[in-house]
Amino acid sequence: MTALKLVSSNRIFGGDQRVYSHESKELGCEMKFSVFLPPQASEGGKLPVLFWLSGLTCTEANFVQKAGGQKYAAELGLIIVCPDTSPRNVNIPGEDDSWDFGSGAGFYVDATQEPWKKHYRMFSYVTKELLDLVEANFPVNSEKKGIFGHSMGGHGALVCSLKNLGLFRSVSTFAAISNPINCPWGVKAFSGYLGENREEWKNWDATELVKAYNGPPLEVFLDQGDADQFLKENQLLPNNLAEACRAANFPFILRMRDGYDHSYFYIATFIEEHLRYHAERLQ
Amino acid sequence: MTALKLVSSNRIFGGDQRVYSHESKELGCEMKFSVFLPPQASEGGKLPVLFWLSGLTCTEANFVQKAGGQKYAAELGLIIVCPDTSPRNVNIPGEDDSWDFGSGAGFYVDATQEPWKKHYRMFSYVTKELLDLVEANFPVNSEKKGIFGHSMGGHGALVCSLKNLGLFRSVSTFAAISNPINCPWGVKAFSGYLGENREEWKNWDATELVKAYNGPPLEVFLDQGDADQFLKENQLLPNNLAEACRAANFPFILRMRDGYDHSYFYIATFIEEHLRYHAERLQ
Repeated sequence: MTALKLVSSNRIFGGDQRVYSHESKELGCEMKFSVFLPPQASEGGKLPVLFWLSGLTCTEANFVQKAGGQKYAAELGLIIVCPDTSPRNVNIPGEDDSWDFGSGAGFYVDATQEPWKKHYRMFSYVTKELLDLVEANFPVNSEKKGIFGHSMGGHGALVCSLKNLGLFRSVSTFAAISNPINCPWGVKAFSGYLGENREEWKNWDATELVKAYNGPPLEVFLDQGDADQFLKENQLLPNNLAEACRAANFPFILRMRDGYDHSYFYIATFIEEHLRYHAERLQ
Repeated sequence: MTALKLVSSNRIFGGDQRVYSHESKELGCEMKFSVFLPPQASEGGKLPVLFWLSGLTCTEANFVQKAGGQKYAAELGLIIVCPDTSPRNVNIPGEDDSWDFGSGAGFYVDATQEPWKKHYRMFSYVTKELLDLVEANFPVNSEKKGIFGHSMGGHGALVCSLKNLGLFRSVSTFAAISNPINCPWGVKAFSGYLGENREEWKNWDATELVKAYNGPPLEVFLDQGDADQFLKENQLLPNNLAEACRAANFPFILRMRDGYDHSYFYIATFIEEHLRYHAERLQ
């Protein structure tokens, strides 16, 4: 396992908000991630850990700077880890040309297509390499892992929990891309990373994965602002996922938020509710 | 009075976080400012208003995105206005060459020196033009105004309250530049904006203004992290201001925060305490 390099550390709410870099074997590049260590992390015990997956164009920094989650994570004794959203600087022609494909838009899949398949393995990075790094370096109770995310990262949180049976005990999303095989962002990303066989795409689509789920009991907490422009543009499709959950008797909560949009202002408003939801299920 | 143009509006904690632009007469350029309107703003009454002044390199956006103040402003019924930190795009040669002088570094003074004096009038902008705009456009109780800020903006909050006798009823700072005539940032800025007559500088220095204050009763709430690199580099000098307050029997509170640095992570940790402090004095 490669060593972590400490990039920065800032005191916040009695805990430490850190950024680390490391050489990723899955992605073949240097990656950064952030970790919030609550005050309880220095008291000798093992703590629950939450993984936050960010959306298009984001890095490991957005949640940390804008969501305001540290206050509640400090109170509840939760470690929060935020990876970046794609490999970086891997010199694939065109990797920086689009805001919704390539850099900043890894979509938490393992690509199968050239020229992406060598580096664009965000699914394996998050669910294996990063998990192992976190468990090896921080006081984490490996039985108590949750995952959540926003937009593309909400899709990521759903896929990581629905494909890895039992790996995460709690999962929640803000404005998730809930049925990517049926929205423009998802079709563009899956075409590029996974190729044109649409049957293969179903292995990376939350709405399809719910239909086929046969793992241990799990619930998904879906959060959505009703003034979200991308909801209106049919990029998110939460009702498709909710309908699939209903049909499959898969437990879900869908909270619609009156007047809220797609921004971190929306996330900041409801982050406390999500962190308490996770803490209740992990403790 | 010029009209306000709405740039953006996002729902957060039941209120509205907005950005407006307008043509500033004081500054001779288009300026942006942000305003948080709590839910109580739509209930017909007049609310207390706080002005937040940001630090070097910042804009009207930093506090809004990173401080997490909206939750408490929504609870307490406070309007919060954040101006930008300097004129923008006024085409002065070299205006963008330094991070600590010119654009993003207006220092909340009215410049007297060429080529700055025509545009760099942030003191008059904040205490006259912006105040008037806010009172004319939002449900503000003009008897209940407070001011606070960070670093260069802490200096600004102190100067605006100490020079404008009775204009602001509450004032607090995070990591303020408390004695600019004796620190490198202040000497650079005041030399450029105010010229080489150091006697004139004293009219813009909180530590000197406290010595001469003869307005209505006022208290300053000074907050400072003890792991702040700029404290260590003698840019902030809070003890000089505290000593001047002691000598002049000027009421002050100085809170030192163990392990906290100069960042918005520090501000986010203590913003609740500051907002409750202001609300108590304004209500």
